[in-house]
Amino acid sequence: MSTVSRFPIPELDTLPEDIRGRIVAVHEKAGFIPNVFLAWAHRPDEFRAFFAYHDALLEKEGGLTKAEREMIVVATSSLNHCHYCVIAHGAILRIRAKNPLLADQIAINYLNADLTARQRAMLDFAVKVAERSHQVCEEDFAALRRHGMSDEDVWDIGSITALFALSNRVANLMALQPNAEFYTMGRASGK
Amino acid sequence: MSTVSRFPIPELDTLPEDIRGRIVAVHEKAGFIPNVFLAWAHRPDEFRAFFAYHDALLEKEGGLTKAEREMIVVATSSLNHCHYCVIAHGAILRIRAKNPLLADQIAINYLNADLTARQRAMLDFAVKVAERSHQVCEEDFAALRRHGMSDEDVWDIGSITALFALSNRVANLMALQPNAEFYTMGRASGK
Amino acid sequence: MSTVSRFPIPELDTLPEDIRGRIVAVHEKAGFIPNVFLAWAHRPDEFRAFFAYHDALLEKEGGLTKAEREMIVVATSSLNHCHYCVIAHGAILRIRAKNPLLADQIAINYLNADLTARQRAMLDFAVKVAERSHQVCEEDFAALRRHGMSDEDVWDIGSITALFALSNRVANLMALQPNAEFYTMGRASGK
Amino acid sequence: MSTVSRFPIPELDTLPEDIRGRIVAVHEKAGFIPNVFLAWAHRPDEFRAFFAYHDALLEKEGGLTKAEREMIVVATSSLNHCHYCVIAHGAILRIRAKNPLLADQIAINYLNADLTARQRAMLDFAVKVAERSHQVCEEDFAALRRHGMSDEDVWDIGSITALFALSNRVANLMALQPNAEFYTMGRASGK
Amino acid sequence: MSTVSRFPIPELDTLPEDIRGRIVAVHEKAGFIPNVFLAWAHRPDEFRAFFAYHDALLEKEGGLTKAEREMIVVATSSLNHCHYCVIAHGAILRIRAKNPLLADQIAINYLNADLTARQRAMLDFAVKVAERSHQVCEEDFAALRRHGMSDEDVWDIGSITALFALSNRVANLMALQPNAEFYTMGRASGK
Amino acid sequence: MSTVSRFPIPELDTLPEDIRGRIVAVHEKAGFIPNVFLAWAHRPDEFRAFFAYHDALLEKEGGLTKAEREMIVVATSSLNHCHYCVIAHGAILRIRAKNPLLADQIAINYLNADLTARQRAMLDFAVKVAERSHQVCEEDFAALRRHGMSDEDVWDIGSITALFALSNRVANLMALQPNAEFYTMGRASGK
Repeated sequence: MSTVSRFPIPELDTLPEDIRGRIVAVHEKAGFIPNVFLAWAHRPDEFRAFFAYHDALLEKEGGLTKAEREMIVVATSSLNHCHYCVIAHGAILRIRAKNPLLADQIAINYLNADLTARQRAMLDFAVKVAERSHQVCEEDFAALRRHGMSDEDVWDIGSITALFALSNRVANLMALQPNAEFYTMGRASGK
Repeated sequence: MSTVSRFPIPELDTLPEDIRGRIVAVHEKAGFIPNVFLAWAHRPDEFRAFFAYHDALLEKEGGLTKAEREMIVVATSSLNHCHYCVIAHGAILRIRAKNPLLADQIAINYLNADLTARQRAMLDFAVKVAERSHQVCEEDFAALRRHGMSDEDVWDIGSITALFALSNRVANLMALQPNAEFYTMGRASGK
Repeated sequence: MSTVSRFPIPELDTLPEDIRGRIVAVHEKAGFIPNVFLAWAHRPDEFRAFFAYHDALLEKEGGLTKAEREMIVVATSSLNHCHYCVIAHGAILRIRAKNPLLADQIAINYLNADLTARQRAMLDFAVKVAERSHQVCEEDFAALRRHGMSDEDVWDIGSITALFALSNRVANLMALQPNAEFYTMGRASGK
Repeated sequence: MSTVSRFPIPELDTLPEDIRGRIVAVHEKAGFIPNVFLAWAHRPDEFRAFFAYHDALLEKEGGLTKAEREMIVVATSSLNHCHYCVIAHGAILRIRAKNPLLADQIAINYLNADLTARQRAMLDFAVKVAERSHQVCEEDFAALRRHGMSDEDVWDIGSITALFALSNRVANLMALQPNAEFYTMGRASGK
Repeated sequence: MSTVSRFPIPELDTLPEDIRGRIVAVHEKAGFIPNVFLAWAHRPDEFRAFFAYHDALLEKEGGLTKAEREMIVVATSSLNHCHYCVIAHGAILRIRAKNPLLADQIAINYLNADLTARQRAMLDFAVKVAERSHQVCEEDFAALRRHGMSDEDVWDIGSITALFALSNRVANLMALQPNAEFYTMGRASGK
Repeated sequence: MSTVSRFPIPELDTLPEDIRGRIVAVHEKAGFIPNVFLAWAHRPDEFRAFFAYHDALLEKEGGLTKAEREMIVVATSSLNHCHYCVIAHGAILRIRAKNPLLADQIAINYLNADLTARQRAMLDFAVKVAERSHQVCEEDFAALRRHGMSDEDVWDIGSITALFALSNRVANLMALQPNAEFYTMGRASGK
């Protein structure tokens, strides 16, 4: 067992070209290789599907800001006690929201975090999808529309939550460890 | 709202070629178009990512039989009260296991189902990943190894569970309705 | 241990006349002997009390249709993961409602089933009695009255739920197996 | 609404002869009429079935002492927060066990009550049947056998628990109030 | 292990003067030494801090009657299954409320107890603080204000609940046994 | 409402001498006044009792290191979703353990944190006391003794957990906000 995952971590130069390319690109941009890339690359097809889903939901344009999407990830990953996702996406949230405090607030108790009413409603819905999606009902959609959200925004909230329901479980299966860099990123005024 | 999903269902001829091709192929094979294909096609990139992940885990070769993989889907989708997945994958399980009774048994209470000790251990682990993945520990891996499972098999069990943690939440978000055909498929001696 | 129950199954000709008579009658009507009759007959006095209670609630006239009473049984037995009751009463519900799909829908997630508003309110109340009866309050009665239900109807909903709280626990204690016939009864257009 | 139940309480002289006879007999023996008799008599057939089941399990001979059977009632009725059953059967337990303290101990936390190892195992099993009967397994039977219990004793423990799963839900549905006499019965050295 | 606590019980004459003085005073007033005093005196500094906190909340003047404060203790200690606190404070509640029945009612199911609307709202809030204090919100304060409570009263309800969250856990850690006297105090018309 | 607490924050110079003295001292040592001191000072007697209890458990000598005591606070405060305590004691833990990562690991999922076997057992017990103290039993004491802990150490673990069961609930009642300083303290190699 490596110190990063319960499963084997592949050598970078043994990986298919597209996967190695993505990892090289993230390394150049971030200055380090987030462990999730190396750990998931143990299964190249699953790597490609996961990051394709991730990009489709977190990198596209849409009604939710990129910071708001990270709020959903942090709030629901905390419910699932996912060490990797709370630490890594907490860092991304600090940077995207330019706020050094918000990620920890949301991870501990989003009900006491410094949020707009719209963001609070967004997280109420995300938590419902994470914990008891079979109870989602028309009233939930109506509540989000009152905050100006479209049905496409509701799909996004629900699907981001669903994607991290997957991601949290796989990361917990791996006992995936976050890189030390993530713990401190964005803590100095969100920079 | 269509009767199939809370979200719009695209017309088949408006879909990208690869997606339409996949849907035509499943139509020819099954005799009907499972609603999950039409509903997810509302978001082509997410459609592609979801089915790529699905095929990587459920269609490949490996230590788990295809029937066993469907057992995992039925057991964990039932915990999540996912109407579509229990009905549709219950049908697939009846056919793959050539057993008309097993899917309902697993959906209601897998602890009382007609399973081998290995399958029982497999579902115990899947349920743990579905409900409390942060408590997965070395003892769980050891228990599965005692039933002859490799670490790659454990990855498969955990990842199938994780994929349907995603799928169940999206289907519940959509209020996705299963096709009527699924309710009766495979009930006559698994045919 | 028999394959039907963890406890002994009596021979039919060793049973008291009234119990044997009831079993012969159900055999003639259904074409097979539902296992619940044989398993409970291990304790004749308990057999008589159970079926007397059953008939008093499920066979009498009243404000709830017979199909609606079976909906209550299926919804709450599913919460209790009672293999026998979900399968056997699912079959009876298909026949009484002349609907081949409804029983599975209610067993998996009644919130997503094809129900009237009145039936939905009825099952909301049944689920509350099944899971947290100590919180039943005047507002619950008022909600049911708004759907045209009398206090006697509320008694019926609550008592059917309570009777299957008993039945589910005894069947689970026995590990009672449903007859194979129940799995397919009523699936062809509710016939 | 009477002060005893949310449902009507019948006049004694309007009741069928057998039911009135039973109530007169309990009145003579106890010195008062326990409210459960009057409240359940609103439905004579259900009254007869309930008390027949009750007598079959609590009044017969068997491997469990009568005090032990009442322990099961108090422990599981407390889990269900049933006001009537905890108070009334707490009184009966004080008398049958000739112990003025035990009923309150079991109602609050049976794990800290003054019990034999056999009684503790009995209540562990009863609590499992009350809360998650679908998980009852062969190991549970084996544990009780190690304390000298037969399979018939296990049936009794499980069925008493199941009967009060019914009784607690009906009493909570009624908001059934215990007679004031029950609160103090048996508190002076169990007399 | 003594029969009173899992931890050593100090001899009275080995205790610091202030602690012995308090114990002598309570002995004179009550006629016996409640076990909580002897058990906590194993740690003199913790004894002093606990009883200082206790007196600050339960003995001072304020918007809540002393009986109402004991209702909070009994309701929340019952949720925590704290044998000592339910029995001892149940006795104090019977005496302070001059009501021999109320303590048992609140311990079993406060929703079915003989309370004013104000007391019911008070206990709803106490239970929320006991079980899920992170969800306390402005609406909770507003609900209590509608019953004439000030913010200082809300502090008192929440803090009494919090103090017994501590007390219940320490008493359960000790397996602290209540004195036999508490079981019967105040049962004769609250005297 | 101040931005620090739902309740009034007293002016420093209106406070009793002993309380003002303590606050001045902590200000000098830490460089800022932690909000918990100002918020609790709204009730001087409760302030004194709380900090006396705190010092008796967290500042004294004993078998647990000071860092280990903070681990207990962080792990159990996270279960209670207490924003203030996780952030403030997370900072103290980073400093006392000279480890910039451990506090976040324990807050998210202590089962995946970098702990010794003894610390893991300590937190297993603390979590049990926090969530279901009525189930504490002799086996729990035995497990801790196998890691070299004395009964006095067990008392400390349980009582620290109990004190923060109080503290978390009061802080959540107040919606107490942590000072911004705490979020970053000790993140640079625990300095």
